[in-house]
Amino acid sequence: MSAKFIVIEGLEGAGKTTAVNAIRSLLRARGIDFITTREPGGTPIAEALRRLWKEGCEGEHTTDKAELLMLYAARTQLVETLIRPALAAGKWVIGDRHDMSTQAYQGGGRGLEDKLLNQLKQAVLGDFEPDLTLYLDIDPQLGLARARGRGALDRIEQQNIEFFTRARSRYLQLVRNNPKAVLIDASQSAEKVAADIVEAVRLGLLDSSAAGE
Amino acid sequence: MSAKFIVIEGLEGAGKTTAVNAIRSLLRARGIDFITTREPGGTPIAEALRRLWKEGCEGEHTTDKAELLMLYAARTQLVETLIRPALAAGKWVIGDRHDMSTQAYQGGGRGLEDKLLNQLKQAVLGDFEPDLTLYLDIDPQLGLARARGRGALDRIEQQNIEFFTRARSRYLQLVRNNPKAVLIDASQSAEKVAADIVEAVRLGLLDSSAAGE
Ligand SMILES: Nc1ncnc2c1ncn2[C@@H]1O[C@H](COP(=O)(O)OP(=O)(O)OP(=O)(O)O)[C@@H](O)[C@H]1O
Ligand SMILES: Nc1ncnc2c1ncn2[C@@H]1O[C@H](COP(=O)(O)OP(=O)(O)OP(=O)(O)O)[C@@H](O)[C@H]1O
Ligand SMILES: [Mg+2]
Ligand SMILES: [Mg+2]
Repeated sequence: MSAKFIVIEGLEGAGKTTAVNAIRSLLRARGIDFITTREPGGTPIAEALRRLWKEGCEGEHTTDKAELLMLYAARTQLVETLIRPALAAGKWVIGDRHDMSTQAYQGGGRGLEDKLLNQLKQAVLGDFEPDLTLYLDIDPQLGLARARGRGALDRIEQQNIEFFTRARSRYLQLVRNNPKAVLIDASQSAEKVAADIVEAVRLGLLDSSAAGE
Repeated sequence: MSAKFIVIEGLEGAGKTTAVNAIRSLLRARGIDFITTREPGGTPIAEALRRLWKEGCEGEHTTDKAELLMLYAARTQLVETLIRPALAAGKWVIGDRHDMSTQAYQGGGRGLEDKLLNQLKQAVLGDFEPDLTLYLDIDPQLGLARARGRGALDRIEQQNIEFFTRARSRYLQLVRNNPKAVLIDASQSAEKVAADIVEAVRLGLLDSSAAGE
């Protein structure tokens, strides 16, 4: 079976990092070699872009378009220098967020035009896409309450709740229209969420008829 | 007369910063209110992107596409938060480099596809463009010798000479096809270059028939 790129998506506090750990255990148990990444970030340059994007500069508002271009700069660096080479070397890749986050946050949340988003995605990524995306669906209030339990909220997390509500609607729409995406109810217990994730990876990639590819 | 955006372009050591000073004096003498900028950079976030772009990260090659997106992130931030508002407030803007540098270096120098460059430029800048571009044409060897006189060369300046030769060819082609661009022979003495620049700004913007716009 060729190496697969699995992505976990969802709002802050949905349980993405927790989910990555569940997939880690599953792949280990199957003896599959893999790496994990996160976005934005995952390489030194991409992490530097992440910091600049998260923190911004004192007294200066980062424009929506500048933010979008920084996110794509980090993404292309990660995809070209880490994800593609790993897949080519037979290693699976588990990603904590990928392009769907940009569609949901910058498109749904910020309201950037679909045309701009599509042009940029096409120009930067072309046909590259995850083999499986697991979207952890959660009410933004619940997710933020979980994230808040973890410490102070950053620039993105401090958006108002309407921002995240718009992002969630966009996520739901994207998942509905993407045959390689699965919705997981992330309001459930951590154990049930992990079980659903493991099942989705099994059915979608490991034990599916497509697994023989 | 509405406020104008004047850009100085050219290879390293062509004399761009020197040229900006000549225009500064001219506009001051005419009692014209203006600001100066440089690219990449010109705002705190754009300058932070400039540093990351110039220095890169130890042991990691910045991909050509990531570089391109970082440059456009810095450019849109500068255009939207500084250049457009200045022009709208009646202030002229003198820019040390702008989009033509990206076309010449990332297009001509790095060899990125025209299609990608055009898509990105259109998506980010739309119809926004300088009212006048002064391209200081110089042999790369001579320019680099001048720049070297200023101190150690950075990541970009350390490209091989073929890189700059390709960038120069692209500059020449762009200037030929742009009615709002003027070629200045930058191999001349500093005094002659300054005089040519002042004349180009006078003819192109200040004392032209279009000046009454
Ligand atoms: N199903 C769950 N039920 C209750 N709490 C959970 C659940 N899943 C995760 N948590 C807790 O919620 C917090 C956020 O989880 P996690 O860090 O995995 O979310 P995340 O989606 O990665 O967040 P971020 O987007 O901020 O990185 C953690 O404290 C985690 O232990
Ligand atoms: N026409 C000229 N003849 C000789 N030396 C010049 C001329 N113009 C500028 N110089 C000198 O060459 C050096 C580079 O000039 P300058 O800094 O203006 O170039 P630049 O195009 O801004 O370079 P960079 O792209 O590196 O910013 C400076 O030391 C400057 O004094
Ligand atoms: Mg997380
Ligand atoms: Mg200079």
